[in-house]
Formats: sequence, structure tokens, C-alpha cells
Amino acid sequence: MSVINKNSARLRDQERARLIWLLTTDKAVTSTLLGKLTLAEQYDVGTLADDIAEVGALVAHLPPPDLADTLEALPSEERHALWRLVQVHERGQVLLEASENVWDDLIDDMSDRDILEAMQTLDIDEQIYLVQHLPRNLTGRMLASLPAEERARVRQVMNYAKNSVGAIMEFEVIMVRPDVTLATVQRFLRRRGKMPQNTDKLFVTSRDKTLLGELTLQTILLNGSQRRVSEVMETQPMIFSPEDDAEKAARTFERDNLISASVVDSVGKLMGRVTIDEIVDVVYEETDNDMRAMGGLSAEEDVYAPVSKAVKTRWAWLAVNLCTAFIASRVIDGFEHTISQLVALASLMPIVAGIGGNTGNQTITMIVRALALQHIQPGNFSFLIFREMGVALINGLVWGGIMGCVTWWLYGDMALGGVMTLAMVLNLLMAAVMGVIIPLTMTKLGRDPAVGSSVMITAITDTGGFFIFLGLATIFLM
Amino acid sequence: MSVINKNSARLRDQERARLIWLLTTDKAVTSTLLGKLTLAEQYDVGTLADDIAEVGALVAHLPPPDLADTLEALPSEERHALWRLVQVHERGQVLLEASENVWDDLIDDMSDRDILEAMQTLDIDEQIYLVQHLPRNLTGRMLASLPAEERARVRQVMNYAKNSVGAIMEFEVIMVRPDVTLATVQRFLRRRGKMPQNTDKLFVTSRDKTLLGELTLQTILLNGSQRRVSEVMETQPMIFSPEDDAEKAARTFERDNLISASVVDSVGKLMGRVTIDEIVDVVYEETDNDMRAMGGLSAEEDVYAPVSKAVKTRWAWLAVNLCTAFIASRVIDGFEHTISQLVALASLMPIVAGIGGNTGNQTITMIVRALALQHIQPGNFSFLIFREMGVALINGLVWGGIMGCVTWWLYGDMALGGVMTLAMVLNLLMAAVMGVIIPLTMTKLGRDPAVGSSVMITAITDTGGFFIFLGLATIFLM
Repeated sequence: MSVINKNSARLRDQERARLIWLLTTDKAVTSTLLGKLTLAEQYDVGTLADDIAEVGALVAHLPPPDLADTLEALPSEERHALWRLVQVHERGQVLLEASENVWDDLIDDMSDRDILEAMQTLDIDEQIYLVQHLPRNLTGRMLASLPAEERARVRQVMNYAKNSVGAIMEFEVIMVRPDVTLATVQRFLRRRGKMPQNTDKLFVTSRDKTLLGELTLQTILLNGSQRRVSEVMETQPMIFSPEDDAEKAARTFERDNLISASVVDSVGKLMGRVTIDEIVDVVYEETDNDMRAMGGLSAEEDVYAPVSKAVKTRWAWLAVNLCTAFIASRVIDGFEHTISQLVALASLMPIVAGIGGNTGNQTITMIVRALALQHIQPGNFSFLIFREMGVALINGLVWGGIMGCVTWWLYGDMALGGVMTLAMVLNLLMAAVMGVIIPLTMTKLGRDPAVGSSVMITAITDTGGFFIFLGLATIFLM
Repeated sequence: MSVINKNSARLRDQERARLIWLLTTDKAVTSTLLGKLTLAEQYDVGTLADDIAEVGALVAHLPPPDLADTLEALPSEERHALWRLVQVHERGQVLLEASENVWDDLIDDMSDRDILEAMQTLDIDEQIYLVQHLPRNLTGRMLASLPAEERARVRQVMNYAKNSVGAIMEFEVIMVRPDVTLATVQRFLRRRGKMPQNTDKLFVTSRDKTLLGELTLQTILLNGSQRRVSEVMETQPMIFSPEDDAEKAARTFERDNLISASVVDSVGKLMGRVTIDEIVDVVYEETDNDMRAMGGLSAEEDVYAPVSKAVKTRWAWLAVNLCTAFIASRVIDGFEHTISQLVALASLMPIVAGIGGNTGNQTITMIVRALALQHIQPGNFSFLIFREMGVALINGLVWGGIMGCVTWWLYGDMALGGVMTLAMVLNLLMAAVMGVIIPLTMTKLGRDPAVGSSVMITAITDTGGFFIFLGLATIFLM
């Protein structure tokens, strides 16, 4: 049993954590690995040598996916130190498994020859995937080194939009003819010797590659070997076209519990297949991007990016935010006379703005999620607006009422309390309406509803909240 | 080829959209289906009858996963109308595929007998999954109707934490002995006649169920039928224990490109397996919950929940937000004297607070994501704080400097401009530090770092921003 236990997920988690701990707690480990220090310069040579030996053993023991994950979880310098320890023949696999955020960092460290060498251990679909994402100056040389057929395929894949099924499609598929027996299929497979990763089915095609059906491995194993492929194949498989949206394909995979599915061209010819592992990556990326977009964060920034990169990726949203805050500030400035007569307004106005921002963000988060899950259809538009307005009205009356009473009690001014309540109700209603309209409009304009929607709604509820509250105060209290 | 084309993902998308359109654009369709109107009462009987016939045809044609998705995308009344059209023998599958948000709604509509009937079409793992999530008053009766062995299993599964591997584990696995030949395995499979969904491998166990290895379907097909299982099985498979965290398991599935994996108890006995379809659901749910949590939205609310439910699920965050806004308001109130002497402060203070909130939310989004992806280890803590402070300092000096100059130019008061710059730098630094500390502390306390972190950081940057700006103004300008 000890053999089995050695590969539990928990143990691998521990090994990765240990590796990170060794590299990050003692700076000398990284420095020595990078050749900045020699062992002789160290005060505690024994421990350091032990640590370095352990790092080496862990790198040798951990499989590529775990090494990729560890690289992602390290600051830049430690990342380089670890990367130098990874064997050249494993580097291709590690690059493949690592997220694109860290590629720049790793590839910077390699000579062109190193890169080509690392690529050689990969199969064609993996090479295509890497080439697609390589820095431009390398793509040309890399393409030149590939055989003509592969080169054509890479060009083909690179023509599809980044978020399309075509961009994540694999070319390596196993095809069988409909008129052979299952025994023949089994002989064919044994002669072939291996199957591409995540092969749960073969594709049944005519001589001109027209897709006729699918034959799962389960079907081969469950049926008598004298049955013909055409008798047992699935004749209504789920198919995708290369132009289909990858995120929608992910929803279909989830809905139909697919492991792999065929990609066919407009006349029904088999082009390749999509597999669940690419789909899982799409799901992780999709939701990750949505969350980042709503928080005003770029997709390129990882948690270990250097300060300079972080400043560069974030400055745009900060500038937008500053502009909207400045506009809100000008609105307040317009009521300077009102505020100077009743300073209490200055301390109450952030409450009206804040509660509107909170409600607006709740609404917008829900709509963005529902759009991502394809739960909103054009017909539901007015229903959604009325529902959100109903929620806002109830919350506005309840919480606005409470806040109005508190204001009355604090300042002994009933009219001020009334203005507070009315302003909160109105701002919540506006937040609800805009929270529905903004993401739906952005979708209609073909833009991603998650990008910047949070910044926009906050700007509107701030500016609107100040205007409504101070405006009402000017009308009723001056 | 027409047969194949009928099942493309795009066509199914269109059919679902058409069904939703039919049900939502003409209220009379839903009303008639719910028996509230009779055909005779309608002014345009012909069109209505056509529409209703088309709805029926679509429901009969669409498979359960698509019906489930359509139900999720409909408002409550239309949802009920559609649900009544779903055949009793399909209802179990549809429930299984639908998200838990809509279960209440659908089950409300069914008698106990209906529910039991719907359950009968499901296999044991599916029944267990449904029973786990049923309303409490039904669980008891449902359990009573199950055979003793299944009852024990349901109880066992229900004992595992909601986010553990145990809760998503399936019991139905195919086991084979190590000493038989592949030919025997194939005969055994054919006699068995079917395999559980997502079976990509069999589990090799000893007589007492101790896991010895895994045998993929690919291995069976690629090797000669006279080979023994023990010669070709994978002896170091990835294994999970039922207490493992489901989200971490999902990361392992993604990392290692798994389709299914075994779950073993503490002494190495096979308990069941986890499959990729449950894992994909975990991924969708995990990120969905994180996004909702950060936006202050409960996981139970779907976009078609009635107003009353939405009010109930949202009031808590609104109350928290109102309290924090109230505290910020009291801070401003403490500087009433300062503001009354220089009203410009009232219009400038929201800029300081707003920019801090923006930066804080960027930082917190990034940290929450990095925590979810396990990219942060204890050793990186001080690195992260210093990195974020560096970014904040640069942004603060640049944007604070610009804003200071604008203030100087607007109000002709250089000291006021200086206070503005200094306040922005300080508030950005505080936002950066708290943006790292809040989620990391919550993780250390064993809480979900996404829940409420956005509300907390906004509260801190608002209150802190007002205090810093007005405090500096009191010191330097009064």
C-alpha cells in the first residue's frame, strides 16, 4: 500500500508547499542556485547544502504539472532559480502546464536552442498550442523549424479568434470506418499502440472524412467483437464548429457531461476534437477574467508580477476612477452654498452614495453572472428591471426609513430626516435600474459586461446620490 | 449528414432560446398551460394553439440537460408552466441537471408521489445526490423508501462536509482482480452490459477492497488479451480521501488532466470515485460563489427569485454597509468645524475615499484569486505587502500629485493641494496594506476570504480616507 499512498493528492500538495518554503524562507538557497553566491561564502554551509539537495530531489520527483504550479506560486527570482533545475526534456511539458502569465519570465531565461529542444518532446497539438502563445519574434523561427503540414495547421489555428473552439481544438483524432467489425477496430488500436490523451471515443468517418458517428471505448468493450461499427455507433453526437464560442462550448460540455467532442467544418467534415481538459482551462479562465474585470484588474497581472508591471496594468482603471470621482466632486461643489448653511449634509451624503453603490454592485454582479450562464434572454428584460426596482423600493423604504429616523433623532430635524429617506429610496431605485441596463447594454454592443461595470455603477450612484441628496436638501431645507 | 447536423451545440442553443421566447413573449401561452385561461377565451386562437404545439414539440425533443437549463432561465410562472409539460419519467434527470436554486420552485409543484416516481428512474448515486439536497421534510420519507444498503450510504455521504470530496463521491465503481487476464475483463464487462457514466478506468482491488491500481479502458484496448491485469495496470494512481477539499481536488483534476479518480479510506480501501462532471460543477460553483460573495450577494439568489426572496437574501449586507457608512459619517461629523470653515473640503473628500476603495478592491480581488488558485504560501506574506505598498506609493505620488495640482489650480490654495496629495498617498498605502491583510487573516481564521472582503475594504478606505484628509486639513489649514 505504500506505493499507492505516495501519490495521494495531499502528499503532492505538501511536496509543492515544501519546495516553495525551501526557496522562499532562506534567500541564500535561491542566491546559490542562481550562482550569485558560492557555498564557501555561506556561514551555515551544512544546512544550506542539505536544503539545496532537498530542492533538487523534490524537483526530480514532482511531475511537470506540479512543477508548473510551483513556478506560478513563486516570486520572480525564486522562479528563475527553480526553472534552471528543471531538466531540458521536461521543460516543454512544464511550459505547457504553466499559465501564460509566467511564460514571459521563463522563456526570457532560455536560449532559442533551449526552446526548440524543449519543444521537441511535445506532440504536434502541444507544439501548436505553445507556438500560438510564444512571443512574436520567436514564432517565425519556430514555424520554420516545423514540417510543412504542421506549419499549415498552426497557421490555420492561429486564424481562429482567441475565444473560439477552433483555437482550443486538437488535430490528433482516431478515425475508423463504419463497415468494419469491432474486432478489426481492436486490432487496429493495438497496432497503433497508443491513443491521444483524453480519448474516450473514436470518430466514425467516410473515406472523405465526413463525420458519420462516434464510437466510444465503452461501446467497443461492451459489445461482441463481431458487431459492425455502424450497428453500435452513436449517430447523433454533439458536434461543434471551429467558429463556436469556447465559453458556450464549455457550458455544453458541462450540460451534457462530455469528455471529448468532434469539431466539423461547414460541410460536415471532421477537423479535430475538443477535450475536457481544454474546457476546464476555459472555465477557470472565463470566471477568473470575469472576477478580475469586475474588480478593475487586468488579466495579465499575476500576484508575483513586479511593481512596474502592476503599476502599468492598473493605471487605466485608476485614471477612470479618478475622473468619475472628480465629476462627483464637482457636483458637490455646485451645492457649496447649501452645505455651508447646513454642514450636517456633508457627513450624511456619503451614506446615500455608499448604499446606492452597494445595491448597484449586487444587482450588476447577479446580471453579469446570469449573462455568463446564458440565463437571460431578450424577453426577460422588463421583468428584470421591475424585479430589481421592487427589491430596491422595499430596501429603500425600510433602510431609508430607519436612517431617516436616526437622522431626525441625531440632528433633531424632521425635514432633514425626510430628505434622507427620500434620497435613499431614489438612489436605490436608480442603482437598480442602471445595474440592469449597464451590463445588458454592453452585451448588446458586443462588449464584455464584466469589464468596468463595477466602476461605472459606482460612478453613477456616487454622482447621482450626491446630486439627489443635496438637490432635495436645497429644495426642501433652504 | 442531416442527422448529424441536427445535434450541433448551436442548434440546441437555438431551440432553447426559441422555447424561452415562446413562453415569455406571449403571456397567454403560459396562462393557458397553467390552466388559468382556456383556448376559447383567447382572441387569436390559431396562433396560440400553434405556439403551444411548438412548445410541446420542443419539450419532447430537448434532452434533460437542456430542459434543466431552460427552466433556470425562466421567471417563476413560466418555469411552472414548462415543468408541467416535462414527462414524469424525465423529471428525475431534469432535476438532477438543474441547479439547486430552482429545486424549491420545481419540487413545490410536485406531490410526494410524483417525487418518488421521478426518483425511480435514477441510479443509486443520482438518488443519493438528490436526497442530499432535498428539503428536510422530504428527506426522511425518501430515505424510508430506499433499500437498507442505500440508506446507509446516503447517511454516510451526508456526514461529509459540503465542500469535501466525500460529498461529491460516487459509489458505483467497477472493480477487477489483479490476477485475471484482459480477455476475462472484457468478458466480465460484456456480461455486465453497461458502465457508469464517465468510466474511463476500472479499479484493481484485492478481495478485501484494498486498492492496488487502476486499469484504463485504453489499456484494455491497447494490450493483448492474454496479458494479466497486474502487468499492465497503473500502480501509482492519484487517490483522494473523502475528507479532502473538493476545490483542491478540482485543481488536481485540472493539473493532472483526470477524468475520474479513486477515493480511498485511511487504510487504503476503495470507497468510490470522483468524476470530471462533478468536478466541473465544483469549478463553476466555486468561482460563482467567490464572485457573488465579493459582490455581497448570497449563493441562493438566482436572477428569477421573487422580490421577497431577493430582499431576504440581501438585507444582511445592506445592513452591514449601512453601519459602516454610518461610522464614516460620524467621522466626518467630528470635523464639522473644519468643514464649516472650508466647504471645499466636503467636495474633495469623496475623491480621496473613492480612489482608496478602488485600489483596495483591485488588491483584494487579486489576493482572493491567488488564494483560490493556491498561489500564496505563508512565506510570501511580507513580499506581497511590500509589492502592493510599492504599487500604491507610485500610484499615490503620480495621481495624488496630479490631483493636488488640479486642486491648487481650482481653489488657488497651494496648501490645500498639498493636503490632497498627502491624503491620497496615505489612503492608497492603507488600502494596499489592508487589501493584503484582510483576506490573508480571514484565511488564517478558516473563513472564506471572498465573503464580505469588498465591503470591509470599502468601509476602511472610506472611513480612513475621510479621517486622514480632514485630519490633515485640520492640522495644516486651520
